[in-house]
Amino acid sequence: MALLLDQPFAPMPDNNEITTKTFLESVSHLPPFFDCLGSKVFAPIKADINGNITKIKAVYDSDPVKYETLQQILLIEKSIYGSEWPKVGATLALMWLKRGLRFIQILLQSIADGERDEDNPNLIRINITKAYDQALKRYHGWIVQKVFKAALFAAPCRSDFLKALTKDQEVAEEDCLAKIHQFLINFTATVDAIYEMYSIMNAELDYLV
Amino acid sequence: MALLLDQPFAPMPDNNEITTKTFLESVSHLPPFFDCLGSKVFAPIKADINGNITKIKAVYDSDPVKYETLQQILLIEKSIYGSEWPKVGATLALMWLKRGLRFIQILLQSIADGERDEDNPNLIRINITKAYDQALKRYHGWIVQKVFKAALFAAPCRSDFLKALTKDQEVAEEDCLAKIHQFLINFTATVDAIYEMYSIMNAELDYLV
Ligand SMILES: CCCCCCCCCCCCC/C=C/[C@@H](O)[C@H](CO[C@@H]1O[C@H](CO)[C@H](O)[C@H](OS(=O)(=O)O)[C@H]1O)NC(=O)CCCCCCCCCCC
Ligand SMILES: CCCCCCCCCCCCC/C=C/[C@@H](O)[C@H](CO[C@@H]1O[C@H](CO)[C@H](O)[C@H](OS(=O)(=O)O)[C@H]1O)NC(=O)CCCCCCCCCCC
Repeated sequence: MALLLDQPFAPMPDNNEITTKTFLESVSHLPPFFDCLGSKVFAPIKADINGNITKIKAVYDSDPVKYETLQQILLIEKSIYGSEWPKVGATLALMWLKRGLRFIQILLQSIADGERDEDNPNLIRINITKAYDQALKRYHGWIVQKVFKAALFAAPCRSDFLKALTKDQEVAEEDCLAKIHQFLINFTATVDAIYEMYSIMNAELDYLV
Repeated sequence: MALLLDQPFAPMPDNNEITTKTFLESVSHLPPFFDCLGSKVFAPIKADINGNITKIKAVYDSDPVKYETLQQILLIEKSIYGSEWPKVGATLALMWLKRGLRFIQILLQSIADGERDEDNPNLIRINITKAYDQALKRYHGWIVQKVFKAALFAAPCRSDFLKALTKDQEVAEEDCLAKIHQFLINFTATVDAIYEMYSIMNAELDYLV
């Protein structure tokens, strides 16, 4: 369970401010998640998310004190970029990254909760589709949606996916699901806080790619 | 016509040996070709081809004398890697790169020759599909083929594609087609020579991705 449990997200502090450094460290362990899906078809997604992380990190590294929290990044970029904002800089990178995080969150939650297609109990297409519909579909034009539908066939079956999540270790399925639930506590709180920040700051966009 | 004519490929020398340095310089102008397709959907393809070029360049830079020609790269890597070869190193990168080059070559040839779907004369789907069928399809499993079919809808119309090829300059369509024909002379000869080299060296693989 290297991926999920050895790298838990930090609990949200009372003031709901997310420390950039801690956040970057936590999300850096997520791109390998897409390797758990088992097909090279997902390489472009991993690359896109890696690109978001790299962009946020570059802004942070340019002045770690100024950009100490994610909230500060949005506030400062808003004042720097004027009317270009929020479709710019680390604000844009985090806008898309949070959608990928939401996708992962909903997918894991759905699997851990035991949601299944009764006709195909060992497939996770139903869980992936739920996550896609809620986190990403509305930002994708019909061509990318069609690409998604095609790529869905490359998804692994449930048992292989759970095995990949636990890496080499032998973990019973119920232990694996319990660990996913555990991981989701701080992860979901973090993703929720980022969404709330975009909503409060009026930084959310809904253009299509 | 910045892309194509300002950066022609070198003519093939009599001994059919391709100089690595010249080749790398010429192909470095090709990834922007995929921007001419006008949609971000093609970004993963551009990234894949860029990756191939980077890999070959890294091998070349490690010892420019030893790796002076593409032939030498294959010969030396064959002796270094033993049974892992040819699915390894710059040999693998060039194996895939040449397929992307063949795709570009067939697409441009087909458009310059005026091949058209009479029912949709301003679409280039027929030309793209021809290039894909001949250069790539047999190396793609059914899922990637399905992704291709979906991505095809993001292709630009003929007139926009030709305009993109000529960048900002105003060029009459027939001049544009003539310049494509001109560009294709050395380009096709180079791609043919690389294919011949893979065939002679028994370095071609046909596994699916
Ligand atoms: C030979 C055949 C060839 C065919 C051609 C291939 C076509 C492939 C098309 C693949 C699309 C790959 C997914 C990437 C989509 C991306 O376009 C979007 C927007 O991406 C954002 O765009 C911004 C500008 O608008 C900035 O550049 C952001 O970058 S910035 O950092 O510079 O600001 C960037 O992330 N990201 C997304 O939609 C995010 C995707 C998250 C992934 C979620 C998981 C889905 C899992 C699905 C499982 C089934
Ligand atoms: C939210 C929704 C998300 C959905 C998920 C997105 C799914 C997207 C799938 C996209 C596939 C993108 C195309 C890339 C395909 C690549 O997989 C293949 C093989 O790629 C090779 O693989 C080798 C190992 O086997 C080495 O790694 C090579 O790398 S190495 O350098 O390390 O040795 C590498 O090039 N290249 C290819 O097939 C080459 C493609 C050439 C492009 C030709 C143009 C086609 C134009 C089509 C126009 C319509």
